Amino acid sequence: MDERRTQLIGAALGLFAHHPPEDVSLDDVAATAGVSRPLVYRYFPGGKQQLYEAALRSAADELEQCFAEPQTGPLTRRLVRALERYLAFVDGHDAGFMALLQGGSVVQTSRTHAIVDEVRRAAADQILFHLGFQPGHEAGPRLRMTVSTWITVVEAASLMWLDEDKQPPVTELRDWLLDHFLALLMASATRDAETARIVRHALDLEEGDGPVGELARRMLPVVGDKGHLLNL
Amino acid sequence: MDERRTQLIGAALGLFAHHPPEDVSLDDVAATAGVSRPLVYRYFPGGKQQLYEAALRSAADELEQCFAEPQTGPLTRRLVRALERYLAFVDGHDAGFMALLQGGSVVQTSRTHAIVDEVRRAAADQILFHLGFQPGHEAGPRLRMTVSTWITVVEAASLMWLDEDKQPPVTELRDWLLDHFLALLMASATRDAETARIVRHALDLEEGDGPVGELARRMLPVVGDKGHLLNL
Repeated sequence: MDERRTQLIGAALGLFAHHPPEDVSLDDVAATAGVSRPLVYRYFPGGKQQLYEAALRSAADELEQCFAEPQTGPLTRRLVRALERYLAFVDGHDAGFMALLQGGSVVQTSRTHAIVDEVRRAAADQILFHLGFQPGHEAGPRLRMTVSTWITVVEAASLMWLDEDKQPPVTELRDWLLDHFLALLMASATRDAETARIVRHALDLEEGDGPVGELARRMLPVVGDKGHLLNL
Repeated sequence: MDERRTQLIGAALGLFAHHPPEDVSLDDVAATAGVSRPLVYRYFPGGKQQLYEAALRSAADELEQCFAEPQTGPLTRRLVRALERYLAFVDGHDAGFMALLQGGSVVQTSRTHAIVDEVRRAAADQILFHLGFQPGHEAGPRLRMTVSTWITVVEAASLMWLDEDKQPPVTELRDWLLDHFLALLMASATRDAETARIVRHALDLEEGDGPVGELARRMLPVVGDKGHLLNL
């Protein structure tokens, strides 16, 4: 990619990260990048809309990389690393991330929606890959719905976190999202044979002092004396 | 409310339910209601935008009623009834519901966003009420985030369900959403004393042959032989 183009996109991303797209002008981008307005137009003849889409494209590529992770070790360790990268992106691009996902922006179009959807699909594919599905091997509808649902949870929780001035600390948000992934997956496993098979295989790789073991041990005092629910 | 006005909103809701708002004209509304175009303008001098907001307001009022439910009996029974009403609304207003929540509509404004957010807040308040919080008694941030997250899950799953031509059957979707509520709440309870207290109280009211008992029994074969995760 052309170096100048990359520089302009970088300047735009920085601005979109702290201002809603409708408040960013090409003059701002030119000033931030230290170049003239005509130069910005030479690279982005489509004006702000084209620059916004290029910046979104660049952010999407970065987000899609978050979930790329070697396919070894316990699933929860991989997910923790992916979540850390994702949440670091959210932290670093806060306002831009909100503008991007919350909609209502004047520069949003069906093309920008398609880019956001593509990131979601890529994230879902990566998670299914870590659950053992090779590319081209389609997971069943319940498992796909569970994974898509969790991605929605991650997005929604990230937006709420930004809205609450980044409280609780990001490590707590990460652990909470991981708990939710495990909880959603376990609940789906109780109704779907494919998910159950995937979960049982994943649990074999988990360690007793890992997140699954800790979640299970923390669960005991909550349900410990509620035996009336298990024994009819 | 004026009878004629109600009739026009009803006609608009019917149209918005099957066409995205940008494809609905005031002529369509007049034709559907069997009245003249000037009459529509007499009731809605602001034109389509005003009619859309009134229809949205009416749909929002209906949606907010879904979660209103007597505060007696097991929590899961109340939630099942609320979910059934909500999903019946989604089923009956499919295209309008999608257009409303997916954004990107030309007639969406900060006012329509505020109406959608108000429905979410009302649903969250109703759920917290059923969890034992009287109006004015604020729940802690983790419990509120859990409830808001689940509302997001319900919305996202409803949109996916419509996108998949209403598959699986609505009763399966309902049971799956209830499982997810229980799973999210239990996971949060393991990290938050307030949520744990609420969950333990709610579990006392549940019956062995109710959804919680069934979920617990279905969970056993999934995790039954994974004792290495509990015993360090």
